[in-house]
Amino acid sequence: MTHYSKPLARLVEELQKLPGIGPKSAQRMAFYILKMPLNEVQKFTDAILEAKEKIKYCRNCFNMSSENPCEICVDDKRNRAIICIVAETKDLIALERTREYKGSYHVLQGLISPLDGITPDDLRIKELFERLKNEDIEEIILALNPSIEGEATSMYLTKLIKPLGVKVSRIAFGLPMGADLEYADELTLARALEGRREV
Amino acid sequence: MTHYSKPLARLVEELQKLPGIGPKSAQRMAFYILKMPLNEVQKFTDAILEAKEKIKYCRNCFNMSSENPCEICVDDKRNRAIICIVAETKDLIALERTREYKGSYHVLQGLISPLDGITPDDLRIKELFERLKNEDIEEIILALNPSIEGEATSMYLTKLIKPLGVKVSRIAFGLPMGADLEYADELTLARALEGRREV
Repeated sequence: MTHYSKPLARLVEELQKLPGIGPKSAQRMAFYILKMPLNEVQKFTDAILEAKEKIKYCRNCFNMSSENPCEICVDDKRNRAIICIVAETKDLIALERTREYKGSYHVLQGLISPLDGITPDDLRIKELFERLKNEDIEEIILALNPSIEGEATSMYLTKLIKPLGVKVSRIAFGLPMGADLEYADELTLARALEGRREV
Repeated sequence: MTHYSKPLARLVEELQKLPGIGPKSAQRMAFYILKMPLNEVQKFTDAILEAKEKIKYCRNCFNMSSENPCEICVDDKRNRAIICIVAETKDLIALERTREYKGSYHVLQGLISPLDGITPDDLRIKELFERLKNEDIEEIILALNPSIEGEATSMYLTKLIKPLGVKVSRIAFGLPMGADLEYADELTLARALEGRREV
Protein backbone atom coordinates (compact mmCIF):
# COMPACT_ATOMS: atom_id res chain seq x y z
CA MET A 1 0.00 0.00 0.00
CA THR A 2 2.97 2.32 0.48
CA HIS A 3 3.41 2.43 -3.30
CA TYR A 4 0.20 4.36 -3.79
CA SER A 5 -0.01 8.08 -3.51
CA LYS A 6 -1.95 8.81 -0.29
CA PRO A 7 -5.32 9.86 -1.74
CA LEU A 8 -5.13 6.89 -4.09
CA ALA A 9 -4.37 4.52 -1.20
CA ARG A 10 -7.37 5.92 0.64
CA LEU A 11 -9.62 5.49 -2.38
CA VAL A 12 -8.49 1.89 -2.92
CA GLU A 13 -9.08 1.18 0.76
CA GLU A 14 -12.60 2.62 0.66
CA LEU A 15 -13.48 0.70 -2.51
CA GLN A 16 -12.31 -2.52 -0.87
CA LYS A 17 -15.02 -2.15 1.74
CA LEU A 18 -17.64 -2.87 -0.91
CA PRO A 19 -18.88 -6.46 -1.01
CA GLY A 20 -17.01 -8.75 -3.40
CA ILE A 21 -14.26 -6.19 -4.07
CA GLY A 22 -10.69 -7.32 -3.36
CA PRO A 23 -7.46 -5.33 -3.69
CA LYS A 24 -7.11 -5.98 -7.43
CA SER A 25 -10.66 -4.95 -8.35
CA ALA A 26 -10.40 -1.96 -6.02
CA GLN A 27 -7.23 -0.81 -7.79
CA ARG A 28 -8.81 -1.27 -11.20
CA MET A 29 -11.87 0.69 -10.11
CA ALA A 30 -9.72 3.42 -8.58
CA PHE A 31 -7.74 3.98 -11.78
CA TYR A 32 -10.96 3.92 -13.73
CA ILE A 33 -12.42 6.62 -11.49
CA LEU A 34 -9.26 8.72 -11.80
CA LYS A 35 -9.58 8.61 -15.57
CA MET A 36 -13.29 9.46 -15.59
CA PRO A 37 -14.20 13.07 -16.44
CA LEU A 38 -14.76 15.10 -13.28
CA ASN A 39 -18.47 15.68 -13.94
CA GLU A 40 -18.99 11.92 -14.32
CA VAL A 41 -17.30 11.35 -10.98
CA GLN A 42 -19.53 13.96 -9.39
CA LYS A 43 -22.61 12.31 -10.89
CA PHE A 44 -21.37 9.07 -9.35
CA THR A 45 -20.86 10.44 -5.85
CA ASP A 46 -24.11 12.40 -6.07
CA ALA A 47 -25.99 9.21 -6.91
CA ILE A 48 -24.53 7.57 -3.82
CA LEU A 49 -25.36 10.45 -1.50
CA GLU A 50 -28.79 11.04 -3.00
CA ALA A 51 -29.76 7.39 -2.65
CA LYS A 52 -28.44 7.34 0.89
CA GLU A 53 -30.38 10.47 1.76
CA LYS A 54 -33.68 9.73 0.06
CA ILE A 55 -34.13 6.02 0.44
CA LYS A 56 -35.84 5.04 3.64
CA TYR A 57 -37.93 2.12 4.75
CA CYS A 58 -41.62 2.19 3.89
CA ARG A 59 -43.54 2.53 7.15
CA ASN A 60 -46.10 0.00 6.01
CA CYS A 61 -44.19 -2.86 4.35
CA PHE A 62 -40.52 -1.92 5.14
CA ASN A 63 -39.51 -2.01 1.52
CA MET A 64 -36.65 0.40 0.73
CA SER A 65 -38.03 3.33 -1.18
CA SER A 66 -37.76 7.06 -1.68
CA GLU A 67 -41.53 7.26 -1.10
CA ASN A 68 -43.20 6.62 2.23
CA PRO A 69 -45.44 4.63 2.01
CA CYS A 70 -43.67 3.04 -0.93
CA GLU A 71 -44.88 2.92 -4.55
CA ILE A 72 -46.22 -0.60 -4.09
CA CYS A 73 -48.16 0.19 -0.93
CA VAL A 74 -49.95 3.14 -2.55
CA ASP A 75 -50.64 1.39 -5.85
CA ASP A 76 -54.39 0.94 -6.18
CA LYS A 77 -54.00 -1.83 -8.73
CA ARG A 78 -52.34 -4.01 -6.11
CA ASN A 79 -54.36 -6.56 -4.19
CA ARG A 80 -53.88 -5.60 -0.55
CA ALA A 81 -55.59 -8.74 0.72
CA ILE A 82 -52.49 -10.76 -0.13
CA ILE A 83 -49.14 -10.14 1.54
CA CYS A 84 -45.97 -11.75 0.24
CA ILE A 85 -43.36 -11.98 2.99
CA VAL A 86 -39.72 -11.60 1.96
CA ALA A 87 -36.52 -11.26 3.95
CA GLU A 88 -34.96 -8.29 2.10
CA THR A 89 -35.85 -5.61 -0.43
CA LYS A 90 -33.70 -7.40 -2.99
CA ASP A 91 -35.98 -10.43 -2.77
CA LEU A 92 -38.95 -8.15 -3.38
CA ILE A 93 -37.18 -6.77 -6.45
CA ALA A 94 -36.52 -10.29 -7.72
CA LEU A 95 -40.22 -11.12 -7.37
CA GLU A 96 -41.25 -7.86 -9.04
CA ARG A 97 -39.09 -8.76 -12.01
CA THR A 98 -41.33 -11.76 -12.72
CA ARG A 99 -44.28 -9.33 -13.24
CA GLU A 100 -46.47 -12.16 -11.97
CA TYR A 101 -47.30 -10.97 -8.49
CA LYS A 102 -49.90 -8.28 -7.98
CA GLY A 103 -50.35 -8.35 -4.22
CA SER A 104 -48.55 -6.39 -1.52
CA TYR A 105 -45.36 -7.20 0.39
CA HIS A 106 -43.89 -7.24 3.83
CA VAL A 107 -40.12 -7.08 4.19
CA LEU A 108 -38.90 -8.76 7.37
CA GLN A 109 -35.44 -7.17 7.11
CA GLY A 110 -33.74 -10.45 7.92
CA LEU A 111 -34.43 -14.01 8.96
CA ILE A 112 -34.53 -15.67 12.35
CA SER A 113 -31.02 -16.90 13.07
CA PRO A 114 -30.22 -17.86 16.66
CA LEU A 115 -26.57 -18.43 15.71
CA ASP A 116 -26.23 -14.81 14.64
CA GLY A 117 -28.32 -13.63 17.57
CA ILE A 118 -31.25 -12.61 15.35
CA THR A 119 -34.52 -13.31 17.12
CA PRO A 120 -38.10 -12.60 15.94
CA ASP A 121 -37.95 -9.33 17.88
CA ASP A 122 -35.19 -8.08 15.58
CA LEU A 123 -37.40 -8.51 12.52
CA ARG A 124 -40.47 -6.62 11.34
CA ILE A 125 -42.76 -9.35 12.65
CA LYS A 126 -44.56 -7.18 15.19
CA GLU A 127 -45.40 -4.78 12.34
CA LEU A 128 -46.65 -7.69 10.24
CA PHE A 129 -49.11 -8.67 12.96
CA GLU A 130 -50.26 -5.07 13.20
CA ARG A 131 -51.14 -5.30 9.52
CA LEU A 132 -52.87 -8.63 10.02
CA LYS A 133 -54.94 -7.05 12.78
CA ASN A 134 -55.81 -3.79 11.03
CA GLU A 135 -56.04 -4.79 7.39
CA ASP A 136 -58.30 -7.33 5.79
CA ILE A 137 -55.76 -10.00 4.83
CA GLU A 138 -56.81 -13.18 3.07
CA GLU A 139 -53.52 -14.83 2.28
CA ILE A 140 -49.91 -14.71 3.39
CA ILE A 141 -47.34 -16.03 0.90
CA LEU A 142 -44.00 -16.93 2.45
CA ALA A 143 -41.21 -16.25 -0.06
CA LEU A 144 -38.19 -16.96 2.13
CA ASN A 145 -35.01 -18.69 1.04
CA PRO A 146 -34.88 -22.50 1.36
CA SER A 147 -32.09 -22.16 3.96
CA ILE A 148 -32.08 -23.17 7.63
CA GLU A 149 -32.93 -19.60 8.61
CA GLY A 150 -35.62 -19.36 5.94
CA GLU A 151 -37.20 -22.62 7.06
CA ALA A 152 -37.11 -21.61 10.71
CA THR A 153 -38.68 -18.23 9.98
CA SER A 154 -41.34 -19.81 7.76
CA MET A 155 -42.26 -22.33 10.44
CA TYR A 156 -42.35 -19.65 13.12
CA LEU A 157 -44.62 -17.39 11.09
CA THR A 158 -46.91 -20.22 9.95
CA LYS A 159 -47.47 -21.30 13.54
CA LEU A 160 -48.45 -17.78 14.56
CA ILE A 161 -50.51 -16.78 11.53
CA LYS A 162 -52.59 -19.92 10.93
CA PRO A 163 -54.55 -19.62 14.18
CA LEU A 164 -55.74 -16.19 12.95
CA GLY A 165 -57.69 -17.95 10.21
CA VAL A 166 -55.51 -16.52 7.43
CA LYS A 167 -54.43 -18.78 4.58
CA VAL A 168 -50.66 -19.29 4.61
CA SER A 169 -48.76 -20.57 1.57
CA ARG A 170 -45.11 -20.95 0.62
CA ILE A 171 -43.54 -20.51 -2.78
CA ALA A 172 -42.64 -23.82 -4.45
CA PHE A 173 -39.18 -25.37 -4.24
CA GLY A 174 -38.04 -27.81 -6.87
CA LEU A 175 -36.03 -28.12 -10.06
CA PRO A 176 -35.18 -24.74 -11.56
CA MET A 177 -36.23 -24.20 -15.18
CA GLY A 178 -33.68 -25.59 -17.63
CA ALA A 179 -32.08 -27.79 -14.99
CA ASP A 180 -31.14 -31.40 -15.54
CA LEU A 181 -32.59 -34.09 -13.26
CA GLU A 182 -29.33 -36.01 -13.52
CA TYR A 183 -27.31 -33.19 -11.98
CA ALA A 184 -29.82 -31.90 -9.44
CA ASP A 185 -28.78 -32.28 -5.80
CA GLU A 186 -30.70 -34.67 -3.55
CA LEU A 187 -32.33 -32.00 -1.43
CA THR A 188 -33.72 -30.15 -4.43
CA LEU A 189 -35.01 -33.40 -5.94
CA ALA A 190 -36.57 -34.41 -2.64
CA ARG A 191 -38.35 -31.06 -2.45
CA ALA A 192 -39.45 -31.38 -6.06
CA LEU A 193 -40.93 -34.82 -5.37
CA GLU A 194 -42.59 -33.64 -2.21
CA GLY A 195 -44.11 -30.66 -3.99
CA ARG A 196 -45.43 -32.66 -6.97
CA ARG A 197 -48.80 -31.60 -8.36
CA GLU A 198 -51.46 -33.49 -10.17
CA VAL A 199 -51.63 -32.56 -13.85
CA MET B 1 -35.05 -1.47 -13.62
CA THR B 2 -38.56 -0.17 -13.08
CA HIS B 3 -38.74 -2.17 -9.87
CA TYR B 4 -36.17 -0.01 -8.16
CA SER B 5 -37.05 3.19 -6.42
CA LYS B 6 -35.66 6.04 -8.59
CA PRO B 7 -32.61 7.04 -6.52
CA LEU B 8 -31.76 3.37 -6.13
CA ALA B 9 -32.07 2.79 -9.89
CA ARG B 10 -29.73 5.72 -10.46
CA LEU B 11 -27.21 4.39 -7.94
CA VAL B 12 -27.25 0.91 -9.47
CA GLU B 13 -26.80 2.45 -12.91
CA GLU B 14 -23.82 4.53 -11.77
CA LEU B 15 -22.18 1.55 -10.05
CA GLN B 16 -22.55 -0.48 -13.23
CA LYS B 17 -20.26 1.94 -15.01
CA LEU B 18 -17.34 0.69 -12.95
CA PRO B 19 -15.14 -1.90 -14.66
CA GLY B 20 -16.09 -5.50 -13.97
CA ILE B 21 -19.39 -4.57 -12.30
CA GLY B 22 -22.54 -6.08 -13.80
CA PRO B 23 -26.17 -5.58 -12.74
CA LYS B 24 -26.00 -8.18 -9.95
CA SER B 25 -22.83 -6.83 -8.33
CA ALA B 26 -24.10 -3.28 -8.73
CA GLN B 27 -27.32 -4.19 -6.91
CA ARG B 28 -25.40 -5.91 -4.14
CA MET B 29 -23.10 -2.91 -3.76
CA ALA B 30 -26.06 -0.49 -3.80
CA PHE B 31 -27.83 -2.32 -0.96
CA TYR B 32 -24.58 -2.49 0.93
CA ILE B 33 -24.13 1.27 0.58
CA LEU B 34 -27.72 1.91 1.68
CA LYS B 35 -27.08 -0.11 4.83
CA MET B 36 -23.77 1.61 5.62
CA PRO B 37 -23.83 4.31 8.33
CA LEU B 38 -24.11 7.78 6.78
CA ASN B 39 -20.66 8.91 7.95
CA GLU B 40 -19.08 5.85 6.32
CA VAL B 41 -20.82 6.69 3.06
CA GLN B 42 -19.54 10.24 3.29
CA LYS B 43 -16.01 8.98 3.92
CA PHE B 44 -16.40 6.85 0.82
CA THR B 45 -17.58 9.66 -1.46
CA ASP B 46 -14.99 12.03 0.05
CA ALA B 47 -12.23 9.56 -0.80
CA ILE B 48 -13.42 9.46 -4.40
CA LEU B 49 -13.63 13.23 -4.76
CA GLU B 50 -10.38 13.86 -2.90
CA ALA B 51 -8.46 11.40 -5.06
CA LYS B 52 -10.03 12.87 -8.18
CA GLU B 53 -9.12 16.38 -7.09
CA LYS B 54 -5.60 15.80 -5.77
CA ILE B 55 -4.18 13.17 -8.03
CA LYS B 56 -2.54 14.56 -11.11
CA TYR B 57 0.15 13.39 -13.46
CA CYS B 58 3.75 14.00 -12.40
CA ARG B 59 5.20 16.55 -14.83
CA ASN B 60 8.44 14.62 -15.01
CA CYS B 61 7.55 10.92 -15.28
CA PHE B 62 3.71 11.09 -15.72
CA ASN B 63 3.09 8.80 -12.80
CA MET B 64 -0.24 9.52 -11.06
CA SER B 65 0.44 11.24 -7.79
CA SER B 66 -0.82 13.89 -5.40
CA GLU B 67 2.70 15.41 -5.49
CA ASN B 68 4.18 17.11 -8.54
CA PRO B 69 6.88 16.02 -9.23
CA CYS B 70 5.88 12.70 -7.72
CA GLU B 71 7.38 11.04 -4.64
CA ILE B 72 9.61 8.83 -6.78
CA CYS B 73 10.98 11.68 -8.89
CA VAL B 74 12.01 13.70 -5.82
CA ASP B 75 13.41 10.71 -3.90
CA ASP B 76 17.19 11.22 -3.57
CA LYS B 77 17.79 7.53 -2.90
CA ARG B 78 16.58 6.73 -6.40
CA ASN B 79 19.04 6.25 -9.23
CA ARG B 80 17.98 8.82 -11.82
CA ALA B 81 20.38 7.48 -14.44
CA ILE B 82 18.03 4.53 -15.04
CA ILE B 83 14.52 4.98 -16.38
CA CYS B 84 12.07 2.13 -16.40
CA ILE B 85 9.37 2.67 -19.03
CA VAL B 86 5.88 1.42 -18.24
CA ALA B 87 2.54 1.85 -19.98
CA GLU B 88 0.42 2.81 -16.97
CA THR B 89 0.74 3.87 -13.34
CA LYS B 90 -0.61 0.48 -12.27
CA ASP B 91 2.40 -1.20 -13.90
CA LEU B 92 4.67 1.13 -11.95
CA ILE B 93 2.88 0.13 -8.76
CA ALA B 94 3.31 -3.56 -9.62
CA LEU B 95 7.06 -3.01 -10.05
CA GLU B 96 7.30 -0.98 -6.85
CA ARG B 97 5.73 -3.90 -4.98
CA THR B 98 8.75 -6.03 -5.80
CA ARG B 99 10.97 -3.57 -3.84
CA GLU B 100 13.73 -4.55 -6.27
CA TYR B 101 13.88 -1.53 -8.50
CA LYS B 102 15.57 1.63 -7.30
CA GLY B 103 15.71 3.69 -10.47
CA SER B 104 13.20 6.18 -11.86
CA TYR B 105 10.21 5.67 -14.14
CA HIS B 106 8.51 7.06 -17.18
CA VAL B 107 4.82 6.31 -17.68
CA LEU B 108 3.84 6.33 -21.36
CA GLN B 109 0.11 6.49 -20.55
CA GLY B 110 -0.67 3.83 -23.11
CA LEU B 111 0.87 1.71 -25.84
CA ILE B 112 1.11 2.21 -29.57
CA SER B 113 -1.97 0.61 -31.09
CA PRO B 114 -2.80 1.53 -34.68
CA LEU B 115 -6.05 -0.45 -34.49
CA ASP B 116 -7.26 1.79 -31.67
CA GLY B 117 -5.85 4.86 -33.37
CA ILE B 118 -3.13 5.32 -30.73
CA THR B 119 0.04 6.61 -32.35
CA PRO B 120 3.38 7.53 -30.70
CA ASP B 121 2.15 11.16 -30.61
CA ASP B 122 -0.64 10.17 -28.21
CA LEU B 123 1.87 8.83 -25.69
CA ARG B 124 4.39 10.58 -23.45
CA ILE B 125 7.22 9.73 -25.83
CA LYS B 126 8.12 13.31 -26.67
CA GLU B 127 8.53 13.97 -22.94
CA LEU B 128 10.71 10.86 -22.62
CA PHE B 129 13.09 12.22 -25.23
CA GLU B 130 13.16 15.55 -23.44
CA ARG B 131 14.39 13.66 -20.39
CA LEU B 132 16.93 11.74 -22.45
CA LYS B 133 18.23 15.05 -23.77
CA ASN B 134 18.31 16.97 -20.50
CA GLU B 135 19.13 14.30 -17.92
CA ASP B 136 22.12 12.02 -17.77
CA ILE B 137 20.50 8.69 -18.58
CA GLU B 138 22.56 5.47 -18.70
CA GLU B 139 19.93 2.82 -19.14
CA ILE B 140 16.34 2.51 -20.32
CA ILE B 141 14.46 -0.57 -19.11
CA LEU B 142 11.39 -1.41 -21.15
CA ALA B 143 8.76 -2.97 -18.90
CA LEU B 144 5.88 -3.22 -21.34
CA ASN B 145 3.40 -6.08 -21.60
CA PRO B 146 4.29 -8.98 -23.90
CA SER B 147 1.30 -8.12 -26.12
CA ILE B 148 1.24 -6.99 -29.74
CA GLU B 149 0.99 -3.37 -28.62
CA GLY B 150 3.74 -3.83 -26.03
CA GLU B 151 6.05 -5.41 -28.60
CA ALA B 152 5.36 -2.68 -31.15
CA THR B 153 6.00 0.07 -28.61
CA SER B 154 9.18 -1.64 -27.37
CA MET B 155 10.52 -1.97 -30.90
CA TYR B 156 9.63 1.62 -31.73
CA LEU B 157 11.35 2.99 -28.65
CA THR B 158 14.42 0.76 -29.03
CA LYS B 159 14.92 1.96 -32.58
CA LEU B 160 14.81 5.58 -31.49
CA ILE B 161 16.77 5.36 -28.23
CA LYS B 162 19.67 3.10 -29.23
CA PRO B 163 21.20 5.62 -31.67
CA LEU B 164 21.48 8.05 -28.70
CA GLY B 165 24.07 5.72 -27.18
CA VAL B 166 21.85 4.79 -24.26
CA LYS B 167 21.69 1.16 -23.13
CA VAL B 168 18.21 -0.29 -23.72
CA SER B 169 17.03 -3.46 -22.00
CA ARG B 170 13.72 -5.27 -21.67
CA ILE B 171 12.40 -7.18 -18.69
CA ALA B 172 12.59 -10.96 -19.12
CA PHE B 173 9.70 -13.04 -20.37
CA GLY B 174 9.51 -16.72 -19.55
CA LEU B 175 7.93 -19.20 -17.19
CA PRO B 176 6.31 -17.53 -14.17
CA MET B 177 7.50 -18.77 -10.78
CA GLY B 178 5.63 -21.86 -9.63
CA ALA B 179 4.48 -22.67 -13.17
CA ASP B 180 4.60 -26.10 -14.69
CA LEU B 181 6.53 -26.61 -17.94
CA GLU B 182 3.98 -29.19 -19.00
CA TYR B 183 1.11 -26.69 -18.93
CA ALA B 184 2.95 -23.61 -20.18
CA ASP B 185 1.75 -22.26 -23.54
CA GLU B 186 4.03 -22.44 -26.55
CA LEU B 187 4.69 -18.73 -26.79
CA THR B 188 5.78 -18.47 -23.17
CA LEU B 189 8.02 -21.50 -23.54
CA ALA B 190 9.51 -20.11 -26.74
CA ARG B 191 10.26 -16.83 -24.98
CA ALA B 192 11.73 -18.70 -22.01
CA LEU B 193 14.04 -20.66 -24.31
CA GLU B 194 15.03 -17.57 -26.24
CA GLY B 195 15.80 -15.72 -23.00
CA ARG B 196 17.89 -18.53 -21.48
CA ARG B 197 20.95 -17.49 -19.50
CA GLU B 198 24.19 -19.22 -18.78
CA VAL B 199 24.40 -20.38 -15.17
